[in-house]
Amino acid sequence: MAQTSASPTPLLKDELDIVIPTIRNLDFLEMWRPFFQPYHLIIVQDGDPSKIINVPEGFDYELYNRNDINRILGPKASCISFKDSACRCFGYMVSKKKYIFTIDDDCFVAKDPSGKDINALEQHIKNLLSPSTPFFFNTLYDPYRDGADFVRGYPFSLREGVPTAVSHGLWLNIPDYDAPTQLVKPLERNSRFVDAVMTIPKGTLFPMCGMNLGFNRELIGPAMYFGLMGDGQPIGRYDDMWAGWCMKVICDHLGWGVKTGLPYIWHSKASNPFVNLKKEYKGIYWQEELIPFFQAATLSKDCTTVQKCYLELSKQVKAKLGKVDDYFIKLADAMVTWIEAWDELNPPTGSAELPNGKGK
Amino acid sequence: MAQTSASPTPLLKDELDIVIPTIRNLDFLEMWRPFFQPYHLIIVQDGDPSKIINVPEGFDYELYNRNDINRILGPKASCISFKDSACRCFGYMVSKKKYIFTIDDDCFVAKDPSGKDINALEQHIKNLLSPSTPFFFNTLYDPYRDGADFVRGYPFSLREGVPTAVSHGLWLNIPDYDAPTQLVKPLERNSRFVDAVMTIPKGTLFPMCGMNLGFNRELIGPAMYFGLMGDGQPIGRYDDMWAGWCMKVICDHLGWGVKTGLPYIWHSKASNPFVNLKKEYKGIYWQEELIPFFQAATLSKDCTTVQKCYLELSKQVKAKLGKVDDYFIKLADAMVTWIEAWDELNPPTGSAELPNGKGK
Repeated sequence: MAQTSASPTPLLKDELDIVIPTIRNLDFLEMWRPFFQPYHLIIVQDGDPSKIINVPEGFDYELYNRNDINRILGPKASCISFKDSACRCFGYMVSKKKYIFTIDDDCFVAKDPSGKDINALEQHIKNLLSPSTPFFFNTLYDPYRDGADFVRGYPFSLREGVPTAVSHGLWLNIPDYDAPTQLVKPLERNSRFVDAVMTIPKGTLFPMCGMNLGFNRELIGPAMYFGLMGDGQPIGRYDDMWAGWCMKVICDHLGWGVKTGLPYIWHSKASNPFVNLKKEYKGIYWQEELIPFFQAATLSKDCTTVQKCYLELSKQVKAKLGKVDDYFIKLADAMVTWIEAWDELNPPTGSAELPNGKGK
Repeated sequence: MAQTSASPTPLLKDELDIVIPTIRNLDFLEMWRPFFQPYHLIIVQDGDPSKIINVPEGFDYELYNRNDINRILGPKASCISFKDSACRCFGYMVSKKKYIFTIDDDCFVAKDPSGKDINALEQHIKNLLSPSTPFFFNTLYDPYRDGADFVRGYPFSLREGVPTAVSHGLWLNIPDYDAPTQLVKPLERNSRFVDAVMTIPKGTLFPMCGMNLGFNRELIGPAMYFGLMGDGQPIGRYDDMWAGWCMKVICDHLGWGVKTGLPYIWHSKASNPFVNLKKEYKGIYWQEELIPFFQAATLSKDCTTVQKCYLELSKQVKAKLGKVDDYFIKLADAMVTWIEAWDELNPPTGSAELPNGKGK
C-alpha cells in the first residue's frame, strides 16, 4: 500500500533548480554546501543591479539582476516585483527543470532531535515524489512514509493518492509570524520538532510561506506567481500567501496535492517588526476579504490546464477583489502578464528558446 | 492571541467520566492508577452478564452489563450493540458529566521521547478546553499550545477559534490498521511520536478511532452513537468510524472543532486479523459509498441542535444508504431510537431522573 516508501530517494540532480532571491553575498550557502552543491542554483538579485553579489566557490549558478529581468521580459517585466523577495518567481519562470526548491538566504541547516543535520532538500524531494491524500485525512499523517500506512476506515479507493504539486517546509527558531505577533511575542522561538508530513485537505486554505518551499514546476509552475509587492506597491510580505491561495484553489480543482510539515530549516533572524507592520497592514485587513474570496472560488470545467485556471482566477480577482481596492485590478492584470511571460519563456512545444532573440 | 496556553489545566475531576467497554478483568487500570483514580469510571460490560468483572481496588466506578442496559432502556435497548465494543456508547448516555474520555482495556500508558509517562487524559482535557481552528489550516499546528501561535497570513478574524467538541488521540506500538493491512504488514509498529495536535479542517472527514478518545458530551454527546455492530449485525469494527463520520458532519454544520494528534497511548496487542476481516469485509466495500455520502451530506438551517442534526442525518441514511443494503435502514431506525433513549435519560430540563421509574 505504501510502495514508494521503500525506494531510495533519487537526487533529481538534473531535474531540480534551487531558486534564491537575495540582496547580499550568499555566504549562507557554505552551510548548505554538502546538500546543495550538486544542484544548479538560480539566484535572483533584488535591489540595486550594480551591486556585486558574491557566491561561494564551487557552486553552479546563474544570476539575474533587475537589468536582466527587464531585458529578458521587456515590458512584461512589470509583473515581477522589485525590492521584495516576490522577485523570486522570476527564477521559476526561467528554470527549465521539473522541480524547484526555493529558500531564503537567512535560512540555515537545522538539526533533528538526534542532533543530525537535516537535508531539507532531500525531504522536499521525498515529499514531492510520493503521492498526496487530499480527499480524506489520515490520522497517522503521511501514509507513504516508512513505518506508516493508511489506518482502519481509510477508503481503499483513495489509497493510490494523487500527484503532489507542492511541499511546504517549516522553520525552527524564528517562526514565521506577522508583525503584530512579532511585536507581542518578540522572544518566542519555535523549538518544537514535529516529525510529520501531511496533505492539506481539499477545500482547505493555508498560509504558504516561501522561505522553504519545494514544488513540481512542470505541474504547478504557472500558478506560483508571487504577485506585485514591494517597490511602488501598497503591500509586502503577502507574496507567498497570494501564491499559496491561488495555487491551492488550482490544485484542488485539478486534483493535485499539497503537503506541509517536514523538512525544517533553521530560520536565523527575525525581520524588523516595525518595517513588517508597514508592509503588512493593508494585507492584514484585505486578507479578511481575500480568504472568503478564495474559499468560495470555483473554476469551470474548461479550466483543464494551470494556465487556463490561472487566467480564470485573474478574472475573478478583477471582478470581485477589484471592489476591495484598485490594487487588485492591477494585480489581476499582472497575473495575465505573468502567464503571457511564462508561456513565452516556456513554449508548449518544449522548445527552450527565448522569444524575440532576447536570450541570456 | 493564545490566551489559553498559559493557564494550568484544570483536572475537571467532577466534570468528566471515563467510559470503558470490556469483557475481562480490568487489570489494565493498575497502570493508569496515577492518572485515572481521581475520576469516576463507567464500565460497560459486554458479553455474558453473569461473568464477574474484577475492578482493581480504589477506583470509583459504576458497572453496567447487558441486563442493566435492557432494564434501563427497555425496548430501546435494541439500539445498543452486543458483543462489540460499540456498546460503550451506552456509557455516554448514562453519564451526567460534561466530558467523556473513553479508552480500550488493551491500551496502556505510553512514554514520550524523553521517557516520561504520558498522562493521556490531561492532554485530552487540554485539547478539549482550548479552541479549534477548522476554517483555515495553521502550519505550526495547534496555535493555542505553549510556544506556538498563528503564523503570518492567518486571518485575524479566525484567531478566536471555535469550541472543541472532540479530541482524538493516537497509538504507539500497534497501529489501528484494518484487517487487510494487518495481514500484509503483521510486524509494523508505530514508533513515530508526532508532537502535534491539530484541528481537522471543516469539510474533511477522517477515521475516528474509539480506542483513545475524549469529547465534550454536553456539546456533541447525542452524535456519539456507535451504531449497530457485533451480535446479529452484518459488520463490526465500524462503530467508531460511523460515529466519527456522523459527528464530523454535525460539528461542521454547527461550527465546532475536532482535534487529532496527541495524546498517545500504548496499544498493546493486535487483534486477530482473520477475525477482523470477517467483521470488516462488508464495511470495506460499503465504506466506498459511505464516504461520498457523508462528504456530500448537508443539514438544513433548522438543524440547530445535535439531536435535530442527528435525526435529519438518520433520514438521509435511510433514503440514500438504504439502497446500498437493508442494514442501513435498520441502522437509521436505531439512530432514531438512540436519540429517543438519550433524551429520556437526559431530559432537556436538566432533571437527571430516569423515566418510567427504571432507575438503577
